[in-house]
This record gives sequence, structure tokens and C-alpha cells, in this order.
Amino acid sequence: MLELPVVVRHAARSGSLQTTTAGLARGHVQGNVAILPAGLAADFHRFCLRNPKACPIIGMSEPGSPKLPELGADLDIRTDVPRYRIFRDGECVDEPFDVTSHWRDDLVTFVLGCSFSFEEALLEAGIPLRHIAERKNVGMWRTNIETVPAGPFNGPLVVSMRPMTPADAIRAVQITSRFPAVHGAPVHIGKPEMIGVRDLGKPDWGDAIEVRDDELPVFWACGVTPQAVVAASRPQFFITHYPGSMLVTDLRNTRLATG
Amino acid sequence: MLELPVVVRHAARSGSLQTTTAGLARGHVQGNVAILPAGLAADFHRFCLRNPKACPIIGMSEPGSPKLPELGADLDIRTDVPRYRIFRDGECVDEPFDVTSHWRDDLVTFVLGCSFSFEEALLEAGIPLRHIAERKNVGMWRTNIETVPAGPFNGPLVVSMRPMTPADAIRAVQITSRFPAVHGAPVHIGKPEMIGVRDLGKPDWGDAIEVRDDELPVFWACGVTPQAVVAASRPQFFITHYPGSMLVTDLRNTRLATG
Repeated sequence: MLELPVVVRHAARSGSLQTTTAGLARGHVQGNVAILPAGLAADFHRFCLRNPKACPIIGMSEPGSPKLPELGADLDIRTDVPRYRIFRDGECVDEPFDVTSHWRDDLVTFVLGCSFSFEEALLEAGIPLRHIAERKNVGMWRTNIETVPAGPFNGPLVVSMRPMTPADAIRAVQITSRFPAVHGAPVHIGKPEMIGVRDLGKPDWGDAIEVRDDELPVFWACGVTPQAVVAASRPQFFITHYPGSMLVTDLRNTRLATG
Repeated sequence: MLELPVVVRHAARSGSLQTTTAGLARGHVQGNVAILPAGLAADFHRFCLRNPKACPIIGMSEPGSPKLPELGADLDIRTDVPRYRIFRDGECVDEPFDVTSHWRDDLVTFVLGCSFSFEEALLEAGIPLRHIAERKNVGMWRTNIETVPAGPFNGPLVVSMRPMTPADAIRAVQITSRFPAVHGAPVHIGKPEMIGVRDLGKPDWGDAIEVRDDELPVFWACGVTPQAVVAASRPQFFITHYPGSMLVTDLRNTRLATG
């Protein structure tokens, strides 16, 4: 039923969809959402451009406008994400299903590519993804790699990890390199301690997943990075999506491929 | 002086160049050479097509013709390789600088891409290659990966290994993927024992090279594979290049890139 992006968005709008968007509207790009007052938007925009692997911008609104026509003709960012998180002065103060009552004339929406797109390409290439097979969330870690700061925004790169055989890891580099708008190629393979990941059994977000003897841990820049960085800057006002509850866009994953 | 491929070939032809071609005619494709009687050429051709990562064909002659006009207008394969090896019934019987006196009307020449091309691309991308920095030969190992057989030709894949930091290994996958005609992407990263490589300190050919704690061993299919496979089949007659003494062609390395 929820195969078309517009149907998914309308289900979110009406309140009939209030949970994860994983697996919905297959073939279409889902996005991380960051909504900030215009006073912070220029800094955040610069932060994204300086850290494109973690923060690939796929859409950006006019100040005050809830529309993102490049991502969906009728899209209304105030209602079309199943669930949101609202931060005031760095604290999460609400997790509503609609942010219409919180809207302000100075808000700018950023939509950033997410790993669902490249995971779809990996699965289509026959590369198994254990967290999906086991119906878990991908494991995510803070690294010792610093993002390039902009304005008040700075902090460590957050990565997600997927275990793969060496042959699949090579293929995964090839495949995800074609998708720079959804995190692109891995940032690291094989030696977690080099990037400050001390314990693969204890992710900072998401679920732990087994890494077998014949596998390498493969790490990608993660869309949690901008959320963590923005939250750490304790902005006066900030709206993001509830984890796993992404914006479903009309863009096709295949359209993001560079070759 | 030896910057132009035709100048290198003429130096080989006149006998003034009798050693390695490494570093000569920069920017141009060098090739592994395999010359077989027509009776074996069809099997060898099929072997190459079935094992394209180890045996990427960049040129092939008419039976009996020493010319390869697609690789150089005046190229004569009987004289233009600095040094050769001649095998009879599987034994190396001569290592001459010219094979004109051994030529036969039924010989077919195959020229296969070699790693010099992708190494040039890696160096240009700023990825250090330790064996080059230390003026050693790259280390090569027989693996437990079987080639796909054809006629009398079968045997293990031979790989070369270059140690790299994880970030460089990711970049190297991206770069070498663009060069399928010169072995393409790595066949393995990080776990030598999985491909039957027991001791990185003891290569089967070439020199041992240090792999540091912050590096992964990265393995590529190697042009020694067809030489080892052909020698093991003990053909009645077979000519190849002396190690490191390649055919220098007019093709530009950049022309081999897929994108």
C-alpha cells in the first residue's frame, strides 16, 4: 500500500503512519531532516558543505516556507514526516507527529541523504546486510575524526558500521562511490581503533551486530553526525525527524547515482 | 630520453635497452606478453576471457604476424621487448634479447594489461606505494582461488600485494575500478589467510615488503597468473617477456579509464 512516496507522506500527514519509514516507497530517496532558524541556517549550510560525506544536502527550503518542491510537489515538511523531535536550548522538549503549531516564519529546512538509499543498492547487488536480516538498527559510533567546524557547529564524525566479507567490502566501495548524495564511499575499513571506535560490541547508537572472523567492519559517515553536532551546539530552537522516521521524497535512488 | 613509446621500442630493437621498462614512457600502457602456437591460442584466448582480472587482453595478433598495429604502428613483437623467455615443453630454454630466429608462422601474440598502469594512477592520486619507494619488486603470491580453466590451462590465481592505510585502500578501490584493462579493482583486502596467503613475509615471487600496524594488505590479480598457468601446462613452445621487461605500447593509461 505504501509504495508511492506521496502515499507515504499523506499517511504521515493524516497520522495513520507514525513510526519508521524503513522499507516504505522502495526505490525512493529518504532523507534526514534538520530545521533551524534562519539565523543559524547559513552556518549549518556551510557546515554541510564542509562535511559532505556526513551531511549530503538533497534539499533546502526558502526561509519560512514548509515546501520543498524539488523533493515532492505537494510536500509539506510540517506534516509529512511521521514523527519529529523538537529541541529548545539543546533539550528535547517534544516528540510530536506534526509541527504545524511550532512553525515559525524564519525556519529553514535541510534534507540530507540517508543510508537507506545505498543499502538498497547494496542489497540489489546481492550484498547481505546483517542488521537488516536481523531486523536491528545499524550500529553507530562517535569517532576520533573531527568534522570541519562552521559557526557554532563542530564535533566528531559519527559512523555506521556494516560487517562484510573482503570481496563484498570491495564491491560495496564501488557501489556506494556512485552515490555521493547519500554518504558515498566508506570512510574506513578494517581497523576500528584507528578511528577511535574501541568496542564494536557497544555502539553509541543503534544495535550491536556480530562481525565474523571472515569479515571486515566497514564504516560509513552517518546522518546522525549533523544531529549530534547541532544538539551539542544547544541551539535555541531545532526540529529534526524522530530516529528512523524519515522524510520520503519523490526522488529515485537511481537518479542519485553518478554513473 | 626514453619518454616516447616508439623510442623505447627502438632501443629494445637495437639492443641498447635490455633490462626493465619500469618508469619508461610514463603515461603509456605497458603489457605482459604471451606468444603461443595457433593450436593453443584459442584455448588461451578463452582462458583470458574467463579470467579477465588476471588476464586483461589489450592486444592480439593475427596468426604468424609479429605486428600489433593497435598498440604501435611500427611495433614488431620479435624485437621490441627488451628481453624474452623461451619455453620448450615447459622448460625455460633461453632468455634472448630478440626472438626473430625463433619466429614461426603459427605464432599468436597476446598482450595483457599490467599493474604499472594502475600504479601510475595511484601515485598520481597521492597514494604512496612502498615497493616503488624502496625500489623493490612488488610481492606476489599463489592463492587458493582457482582460475576458470580452458583447454590445458588451469591453476591458482596469483596476486600482488600493496600495503595501504584503510583510507588509501578505499581510494585505491575507487581508482583501480576505473581500469579494468589493467587488473581493475582489488580481489581482496585485509585477511590474507582467507585467500591462502600464509606468510606476507615470504612472497612466491618478488620482494617482501613491510605491512605496518595501521595498514591493510590490498591484493590485486596479477599478470604472473597466465605465465604460471601456461608454464604449468608444459606447452611445446611458448615465448613470454623477461620479468619486468615489458612491451611498451602507444596506448595512454588514461585511455584505459572507464570514466
